Amino acid sequence: MSEQLLEQPLQQFLGALSSGTPTPGGGAVAALGGAMAASLLAMVCNLTIGKQQYAEFEDEARALLGRAEALRAELQTLAQADVDVFDHLSAAYKLPRVTDADAASRRAAIQKITREATVVPLRVARAATALLPLCAPLARHGNRNAVSDVGVAVLMVRAAVPAALLNVEINLAALEDQIFVRQTRAQAEDLALGLDEEVEGVLALVRERIAS
Amino acid sequence: MSEQLLEQPLQQFLGALSSGTPTPGGGAVAALGGAMAASLLAMVCNLTIGKQQYAEFEDEARALLGRAEALRAELQTLAQADVDVFDHLSAAYKLPRVTDADAASRRAAIQKITREATVVPLRVARAATALLPLCAPLARHGNRNAVSDVGVAVLMVRAAVPAALLNVEINLAALEDQIFVRQTRAQAEDLALGLDEEVEGVLALVRERIAS
Repeated sequence: MSEQLLEQPLQQFLGALSSGTPTPGGGAVAALGGAMAASLLAMVCNLTIGKQQYAEFEDEARALLGRAEALRAELQTLAQADVDVFDHLSAAYKLPRVTDADAASRRAAIQKITREATVVPLRVARAATALLPLCAPLARHGNRNAVSDVGVAVLMVRAAVPAALLNVEINLAALEDQIFVRQTRAQAEDLALGLDEEVEGVLALVRERIAS
Repeated sequence: MSEQLLEQPLQQFLGALSSGTPTPGGGAVAALGGAMAASLLAMVCNLTIGKQQYAEFEDEARALLGRAEALRAELQTLAQADVDVFDHLSAAYKLPRVTDADAASRRAAIQKITREATVVPLRVARAATALLPLCAPLARHGNRNAVSDVGVAVLMVRAAVPAALLNVEINLAALEDQIFVRQTRAQAEDLALGLDEEVEGVLALVRERIAS
């Protein structure tokens, strides 16, 4: 894929995603799901800042906006990184394996890039998880008209984290370095821990505020 | 918003989403989450069709591809419809209310468009739910290298459905027609029913196939 992911119009991106080419794929979707969550949280901050009735929350909303924008930038970069690493991986699988030396260097290249293909989604899961602490304060004190958007954001986080971790897992399965596999799997398990409870807590706040 | 949603480059869309303008918002994200799920399922079909080792599943994969593409088209249309209905709603709130007659027609316009603003996300939830029956057969019999993409798709469905229903709920809260509110709420509850169990079932198939 020559064109940069984020420069693609949505329609074209969805077409490329549907096609039988390896990229973009689920890893990019996980990162973009996280980026959409970050964007929605930034929007709720922007709809809160400068409004008289939310003046007491203004300083916190500004701080949360900075955090949401930083995580959005990171998740956008990771979406592109996911596409890049899979393009490299496809290229590595196409390396020659006629001689034993060829085969050995092809195998080393595949191992090296597959390792990278676990690192990128792990960073996606970590960045998406880092959005969670922004959700509860915005659900409680942000612009009430946008509280459903906080709910959508936290639902996208709940999708993006395990989606990224599935990509970690499928690539770990192809790795030979069992120490790296065990270490990475432990980090992935830590990230998944307590996610559902935290998401349910935010959703309860959102539903309460919609009903109030 | 003058430019059509799907013609916007991803980067620009995420910027517009983050901004303090009312559209695009969480409703569009729910629809696009569903569209990304549909795209990933189509991709898995495309990576399965024409491959010798999946020949027995080929006819079913072709049928699932048609279904995924139809639902993707519907969800893309609904993403734009969500933006349009919220732009109309913003415009209705800006109608004059100097005279009693003005105020009455403004109120009627807001009620009419808010009703539409519950219909669009309900259709999003329905279309996203319709993706679920495609997931299990693809997780079981689709291209094994893309099984994590089926997992990402089903996680996006699990986000898109309740995300859309939050948008139904927040707009129902502003409606006066209590018969319509009760009917719509009943439909929304039906759509949410059994979703988590079905998603967990697909995820178990995906994890099993990754580990095998």
